[in-house]
Amino acid sequence: MAKVVLDMAMSLDGFAAGPGGEDSGLNDWFFAPAGRSREVIEESIASTGAIVMGRRTYGAGDDAEGFSETPYDAAHFVLTSTPPTRPPTGEVAFTFVTDGIASALEQARAAAGTRNVAVGGGPTTAQGFVEAGLLDEVQIHLIPVLLGQGIRLFGQAGERLALAPTGVVEAPDATHLRYRVLRNGAAQHGH
Amino acid sequence: MAKVVLDMAMSLDGFAAGPGGEDSGLNDWFFAPAGRSREVIEESIASTGAIVMGRRTYGAGDDAEGFSETPYDAAHFVLTSTPPTRPPTGEVAFTFVTDGIASALEQARAAAGTRNVAVGGGPTTAQGFVEAGLLDEVQIHLIPVLLGQGIRLFGQAGERLALAPTGVVEAPDATHLRYRVLRNGAAQHGH
Repeated sequence: MAKVVLDMAMSLDGFAAGPGGEDSGLNDWFFAPAGRSREVIEESIASTGAIVMGRRTYGAGDDAEGFSETPYDAAHFVLTSTPPTRPPTGEVAFTFVTDGIASALEQARAAAGTRNVAVGGGPTTAQGFVEAGLLDEVQIHLIPVLLGQGIRLFGQAGERLALAPTGVVEAPDATHLRYRVLRNGAAQHGH
Repeated sequence: MAKVVLDMAMSLDGFAAGPGGEDSGLNDWFFAPAGRSREVIEESIASTGAIVMGRRTYGAGDDAEGFSETPYDAAHFVLTSTPPTRPPTGEVAFTFVTDGIASALEQARAAAGTRNVAVGGGPTTAQGFVEAGLLDEVQIHLIPVLLGQGIRLFGQAGERLALAPTGVVEAPDATHLRYRVLRNGAAQHGH
């Protein structure tokens, strides 16, 4: 069955973005992968059938047009309460979901078929999935940088997850860590 | 020449201790190592000639007696402004250093000879060394747990470090990450 995989970059000190939400170079590895980071990207592209992301990753503001290119052959679901007023301009298939994470995941699962649903695109999205107890796996691209301050990937939500390491891929630009989720928010809270 | 190696456990979300400074199980791997964690400990014991640590790790309070056993054949230097009123009771060689990090490091280097100086024992000590720009390497034992809140290992001090990954050892209880320090606080600030 398809798995739901949190797939995000994080600084060694736990941040997914700088203090103002800026990328801070954390995703540079993806656009110019070094060493075995290429393999990690290829594996992710092959295994991912749908992607759930936040509005900021799509592009902020009413007139955001989304990104026009992606190596992924996947349906993209954008969680937002305020969809942009004009349609995406590129060839990427975006669906705007305004009725919450569970709905986004249901649509993403249907689109992904036997492939995985990747959850990416920002700490708000990540923490929402952690809090809802919906993750099967966590893949962290641990960037060898310390930001000192910023927006934490897991925030307080993190304490709801118990993880078991399942593999590491080393590269000069990132250490790619995989974990299986043993227990998550929903289970811990008895839902 | 001997290297100065920060050697500490950290939760996946960047904490070196719980909110009240409690260990939160982050050092369990050391006392009951699984899989290749044994190798990491053996390598650390063989390469370490002196250890610099904080007062909390030694034991809080006037009447703390220190820990009485350690697998390390190393001199222990405890950074503190208030040494305990009674001497350590065990066989571990402790020296209390009241005149700061540079002095502790100088004494530790002399004791270590050609072996390394390990910096351990708490985020205050770690951040002091980062801020003073004194680290050559960083070894993080990344524990597969998310605390959600606590005392961050690097704090704001982290932004002064630039790192290059040099190796990873995988184990079920910790992912052991090694980094070389490319640039640190002192260099960045022109001292």
